[in-house]
Amino acid sequence: MFYGRIFLCPLVFRIFEDMDKGLNLSVFILGNSAAIPTKTGHLSSQLLTYKNNGYLIDCGEGTQMQLIKYNIKHGIIDYIFISHLHGDHFFGLIGLLSTYHLLGRNKPLNIFAPAPLKNIINIQLDVVHTKLSFDVVFHELKGKSLTKILDTDDISVYSFPLVHRIDTWGFKFVQRSKQRKIKKSFIKKYNPRISDIQSIINGDDYTTDSGNVIANSKITIPPPKPQSYAYCSDTRFDDSIAEYVKNTTLLYHEATFDNSMQQRAFEKFHSTSGDAARIAKKANVSKLIIGHFSARINDYEKLREEAAKIFPDTIISEEGKEYIISS
Amino acid sequence: MFYGRIFLCPLVFRIFEDMDKGLNLSVFILGNSAAIPTKTGHLSSQLLTYKNNGYLIDCGEGTQMQLIKYNIKHGIIDYIFISHLHGDHFFGLIGLLSTYHLLGRNKPLNIFAPAPLKNIINIQLDVVHTKLSFDVVFHELKGKSLTKILDTDDISVYSFPLVHRIDTWGFKFVQRSKQRKIKKSFIKKYNPRISDIQSIINGDDYTTDSGNVIANSKITIPPPKPQSYAYCSDTRFDDSIAEYVKNTTLLYHEATFDNSMQQRAFEKFHSTSGDAARIAKKANVSKLIIGHFSARINDYEKLREEAAKIFPDTIISEEGKEYIISS
Repeated sequence: MFYGRIFLCPLVFRIFEDMDKGLNLSVFILGNSAAIPTKTGHLSSQLLTYKNNGYLIDCGEGTQMQLIKYNIKHGIIDYIFISHLHGDHFFGLIGLLSTYHLLGRNKPLNIFAPAPLKNIINIQLDVVHTKLSFDVVFHELKGKSLTKILDTDDISVYSFPLVHRIDTWGFKFVQRSKQRKIKKSFIKKYNPRISDIQSIINGDDYTTDSGNVIANSKITIPPPKPQSYAYCSDTRFDDSIAEYVKNTTLLYHEATFDNSMQQRAFEKFHSTSGDAARIAKKANVSKLIIGHFSARINDYEKLREEAAKIFPDTIISEEGKEYIISS
Repeated sequence: MFYGRIFLCPLVFRIFEDMDKGLNLSVFILGNSAAIPTKTGHLSSQLLTYKNNGYLIDCGEGTQMQLIKYNIKHGIIDYIFISHLHGDHFFGLIGLLSTYHLLGRNKPLNIFAPAPLKNIINIQLDVVHTKLSFDVVFHELKGKSLTKILDTDDISVYSFPLVHRIDTWGFKFVQRSKQRKIKKSFIKKYNPRISDIQSIINGDDYTTDSGNVIANSKITIPPPKPQSYAYCSDTRFDDSIAEYVKNTTLLYHEATFDNSMQQRAFEKFHSTSGDAARIAKKANVSKLIIGHFSARINDYEKLREEAAKIFPDTIISEEGKEYIISS
């Protein structure tokens, strides 16, 4: 599905209106089963994409096979985020790195993860006598509040603490404020010089060759509101999480159990469908998507209905599906 | 496919003729792709079964999902054999152990593997704060010749050295010499006591209540010739291997490359289809099954034909298929 999304000329294409087609902020569910895989459910992993860059979130065993199954090109991933060191969220990482190596990857890979992961990876690479063909840049997660961990040209990423048996972080991805976009009609009418383009998208007015000044607001359109995605898995219900994900466009929140298993959820440091919905409501998000379902759960629709009673705009995450994130 | 194979009463069932149905020595291919998974090919793992006991041979990433996919019960595996510490042969082990733990396994698991694996597993378990619910009995592979590493009631297992970039072992599984089996007609006619059964299958004659002695050879049939299975992956062609697998019923030998890639096979410490066939011929095995195919190979039939020119009874290993081992 990502095959063929080739972005030919970022500099020119991104500054005009209506050119974002195929470059949406979206999330693809590679796996959303909790703890143990099932016949149809793989372990936690998601791929956020934006402008043909991939941001892999968690990497349970089998993630590299899922990437292959869904025709997702290895090369689009430069950033990997591991929420915590329970095996169902990271046991697939060493295999993915090995495959990158065997395929001759040479660009760096950034991994944001709890500190002990670095040692786990290095020990395994030592044993298999592998010096990777690319650099791994390891970024240790450590903030105990909302912490910016990455700025790219396109996106800012934040980590925030969740409440689980071991140190666990959620992630929030926010589109960086876009520049204004130039109206096509202006381009057609005035045929401006390339050197004028940058100043116009920065907000400057345009002066024609004959000296007429045209106000910036007449020849550009404002950027859309930045959209955002937040990922909360695994966590016990906690009010503070709502603060970290406030006003997010799409919130993924774990719902390992249904409402009848509230006590079990608490004891296991997980959430119910109702817990997820309460966070979504309090955080005033636009939409809630629930996942990380226990193998004991057969009726996902029941979970959705339970959540929808509290937060109506709730959907079920389905493995192998892409969700376009829009407000 | 293994679902439903319930062996009700081993002691009684195994000593009579014609009772081995469903208890054959067989091997099920869980994955046979080399190095990198493909859209249809998982990494190395096989399950040898005999009398409802499972012997897992190698455990590439995704093995636990393959076991689930093919309805193979977790509980049948008490022995795992890891040939060497290249990731495509063992990265699935930690996930399988974790799942056993989460399912509450309490019987011991025996792992036969190169020494450094123990440390790799323990470090990962420490990080995820897991004290397994069952004992792992670790057996370090170290012999540089044919070495018996296991005797169960049913089977003997041997390791032997292969020729690869790192220390690598093949495995040979041999049915233990079976006891003679009692003819049904004798049971029907003489209705012997349970206490007589053991002495008869041990070779004793039978004395009737009236004192008549009936020769053992008249009331029993001899056991069939022990069957055997050998696993050679990964290895460069080497004459000595033929000696280790001599007269094996079914030999699995890697054929990572076709004959046109002989030089590459040598450099990478792998075999071609022709190499595999030469070992099979020299070892006088009954049948050869080839696998561990490079992702570059599309035409498996070509490999089979190349091998069959040297050793006619050659077949291709297919993922998801079971092969009954018979001479």
